[in-house]
This record gives sequence, C-alpha cells and structure tokens, in this order.
Amino acid sequence: MVIDPDYLLGRDPVVIEQNWTQRDTILYALGIGCEELDFVFEERLKALPTMAVVLGYPGFMWRDPAMGADWTKILHGEQSIIIHKPLPSEGVFIGENRITHLFDKGAEKGAIALVKRSIRGKDGTHYADTVATTFLRGDGGFGGSSEGAPVPHPVPTDRAPDLSEALKTANNAALIYRLSGDLNPLHIDPEVAQSAGFDRPILHGLATLGVVGRSLISELMDNDPARLKRMNARFSKPVFPGETIRTDIWREGDGKAAFQAFSVERDTMVLNNGYVEFAA
Amino acid sequence: MVIDPDYLLGRDPVVIEQNWTQRDTILYALGIGCEELDFVFEERLKALPTMAVVLGYPGFMWRDPAMGADWTKILHGEQSIIIHKPLPSEGVFIGENRITHLFDKGAEKGAIALVKRSIRGKDGTHYADTVATTFLRGDGGFGGSSEGAPVPHPVPTDRAPDLSEALKTANNAALIYRLSGDLNPLHIDPEVAQSAGFDRPILHGLATLGVVGRSLISELMDNDPARLKRMNARFSKPVFPGETIRTDIWREGDGKAAFQAFSVERDTMVLNNGYVEFAA
Repeated sequence: MVIDPDYLLGRDPVVIEQNWTQRDTILYALGIGCEELDFVFEERLKALPTMAVVLGYPGFMWRDPAMGADWTKILHGEQSIIIHKPLPSEGVFIGENRITHLFDKGAEKGAIALVKRSIRGKDGTHYADTVATTFLRGDGGFGGSSEGAPVPHPVPTDRAPDLSEALKTANNAALIYRLSGDLNPLHIDPEVAQSAGFDRPILHGLATLGVVGRSLISELMDNDPARLKRMNARFSKPVFPGETIRTDIWREGDGKAAFQAFSVERDTMVLNNGYVEFAA
Repeated sequence: MVIDPDYLLGRDPVVIEQNWTQRDTILYALGIGCEELDFVFEERLKALPTMAVVLGYPGFMWRDPAMGADWTKILHGEQSIIIHKPLPSEGVFIGENRITHLFDKGAEKGAIALVKRSIRGKDGTHYADTVATTFLRGDGGFGGSSEGAPVPHPVPTDRAPDLSEALKTANNAALIYRLSGDLNPLHIDPEVAQSAGFDRPILHGLATLGVVGRSLISELMDNDPARLKRMNARFSKPVFPGETIRTDIWREGDGKAAFQAFSVERDTMVLNNGYVEFAA
C-alpha cells in the first residue's frame, strides 16, 4: 500500500472535546495501579501527568480506510508527553490531533508518522502536548525522506542505575485501564491476543508508561506529580497483566534523567530510551 | 431525637434518573472483583442482578436535617433485591426511592425503616425493586408499633452447607467499588475509618453482597445472571478489602437456597440470614 503524504499531513485535525470528571481521573489512576489517596480520593485529588495520553484521544484513527495505511502492521513505537501546566483533576479538555511529520525508511523498513495532540482547557489554557511515534511497517517507500526522524535518547547503561523501583501490576490492570478509552480487544480478548501472536491479552503500552511514570514521580519528584515536565520512551516489548514492572533510572544532571523498564518475571525490557525532565 | 413518622412516610419519593453506560456496568463488575469476560467486556456484556443496588441510588438521604434522624447512629441492616426482568447493560434508569414502613422497637433498641427503590427504564419497564432495612438506633420510641417488622430468613445451620465458594477481594476493591456511587469516606479514608472504630477502611456492605451474589450465581445458576430472582441478606460485620469472602449455601428446594458469608481470614460472619430465589 502507498500512503499519500500530502493528504495525511494536510488533513484537518481530529478535535475531541471531553467533559472530564474526577471519577475519570480516579479511574485512570486505578488503571495504572495507584492506591495513594492523593491519586484516588476526590477530597485531595491530584491528576497524574501521564493522564495526558488519554485526554482528547481520538481512537485508533489509522483504521479509517481514508488514511490509506496498512493498519494491521502499525505499531505504537514511541510516546512523548510534554506538560506545560499541571493537569487539573476535572474540567473540559479539548484535544487536537494531527499528523505533523512523515518519514520514509523505505519499502523494507516502513514509514514513521508523528501524531501530535495538543490538550487545552475550554478557556484556551494549553496544558500539554503528546506525540505518538507510529511505525507504519507496511507503508514505506512512498517517496519521502527519512531525515529529521526522531533520535531515541541514549541510556547510559555502561553504569548501574542510580535509582530503581518495582511495581506489581494487577491481574485485572488492563480491564480497568481500558475504561479510560482504549477499548482495543487485544487487551482483553484471549482470541484476539492469540491471533496477534500473544499467549494472552497484553497490557496497554500506555498503561505501562503510566506505571513507569509513577516510579519516576516517586523516585525523582518526592511523589509530586506537578513537577513532571516531559517524559519520552520507546516501547520494546509488551507487559502481561500481573507482571512486575521495574524502572531503572539514571540521573543526568539537574531535573533530567534517563530510564528503562523491565518485566521482572520475564527479565525482559519493556521500555527503552526513556527520558524525563522535571522541576527541581 | 424523635422522628415524625407521618412526615417520613408521606414524603415525595426521591427520583433519580441516570443515563447508565456499558462502562458503568463494567465498572460495577470490576468493583466486586469480576474478571469473567461476560461481565467486563462490552462485546458480550451481561449485567449482574446485584447492580440494582447502585441504580437510582439517591445518596445517603438520612443526613438531610429535614429527616429528623440521628444519622450518626444509623446502620444499613439488611438488603433485599427483587428482579422482575433481567437488567440491561445500558440505558436510562429511573429509581424512585421512598420510605414505605417504620417500626418502633422502643427508645432502647431504636427504629427500623424500610426504604424501597423501584427501578424502571425510560419506557416504564419495571426491572427491579430493592429494599434497604435501615436501623435507626437513635430514633426509637416515636410512638409506633413493631408489628410486621421483617423476619430474617432462618439458615439451616444444623447441617453442613451443600455448596461453598471462596472469592478473594482485592486490596483496592473499595477504591473501585466507590466509583459506582457510594463515596462515603469510611471506605477510603483511614482517619474516618478510625473515628468510626475500625482499624482501617472497610469494604462497602453492598460490595460484599455483590461478591456473594457472584458465588450464588456461579454455584446455583451455572453463571447465568439472568436466573436470579431475589436475594436478601443481613449485614453482620464488615469485610476489610483484601480479605477472602466464603459463601456457604444450603439448598431449600427448587430454585431456593439459604446462605451465609464469612471473612475467611478472620473466621467471622459477614452476612447472615441469606435467602435467594432463582429460575430453575
């Protein structure tokens, strides 16, 4: 299949407006395993910055035939979150989703799309941007360039991590997480998971990102979610619900750190090239 | 304090209309620990009959000063669910809540109120009734009669139960369950729990009822939730989240059974005088 870059880059943004409640904020936190009262009790509720990934989410837009992409070969490769202002725990959010870049790695390797979402309040407050790096494995060779494609952050694995935290996920983690909007049956239906090559349903990559975000916030930011400014990572392998996610952290100067994450039970890397910025 | 029975029995019903979504139905099921796809996956979703207790729930109405009751001394004593038609997994529900009976056990023992809720669809379909038996421990001696007060169902404990099932609750069970509408901080805030005399937050009694309902449906009804017609029980002691709830069941003829439930870890009865009716 050959995608049309002019069409994809020129499309109108997909605008999603949501009336987000404290109940939604709590449900997101429960989906990534939180039990701290600050994140699950409306009387003292703080929103986690990683919640940005579920605000203004337009659904899996590549499945629309108009996109011209081979959606069965698409992988969510990397995710960035940029926080401009701490997210409130409730309110109206408006997400504007647009494809901002397309890179061509050739017919063998495929194409890369950057899908950016700006998240604003009803009053125009710009809270956050998210960027999903999408690997269109079946859509390379459309005649574009690969120059300028994002370079993954190098993790200094030549030395031991400075900090490390392991968090156990619950067997029903994906069942809860999906209620925040990503209802892909891959995360609940054993038959769908098997036809995708997995023994059983896998945890959402963005749920793994949220669990890792909790460790970054507790280990680096004294558990204050308002201090997180930026977080990037590349998805390596999926996590299965019930597994323990260990986050290894390397400090890289004031308010900066690199990280990786692992499934402890399978001794397998699940996130790589992690990078986080936070207020001192 | 002396309650005014004429006022309480003559009040207009509290009418609650809800637009109930499949997400709400799934969240209720997750709150009572379900992981079976029939109860948590929108593509094959069945509503559990015990969900009736959260449909059309008016909140803790006794706290309204107009009720004239000493609300700090109130206990939710017993709960009945009567299903007329299996609950759909989504739709508009209208709950009409009214106090139908008041019994006077004297100034020492207090009063008993029956609060009935009829649950209908927007088209008038009468799905269910629930009756909460409320012990107003501080409001006896208002000059009424105790005649006709409900008699708890006797459980034939002179013989061993015919069936038994134990279900483990999750540590975050109350955190999930409360998102179905009962936000009483007793179930999440350690300080509130301690001032109420508990070491830590307790599980909602109606969540315990839901967990026991799951065991009744799996043990007696081949896991078909549409077969449950009626379920009554008396709350004996609270469950703490994380404990295992064992339900002991005594068959009492076609489509009828008695039951009790226990906290396995503390070897303590949590529900007594249980009675269930179901389609053969």
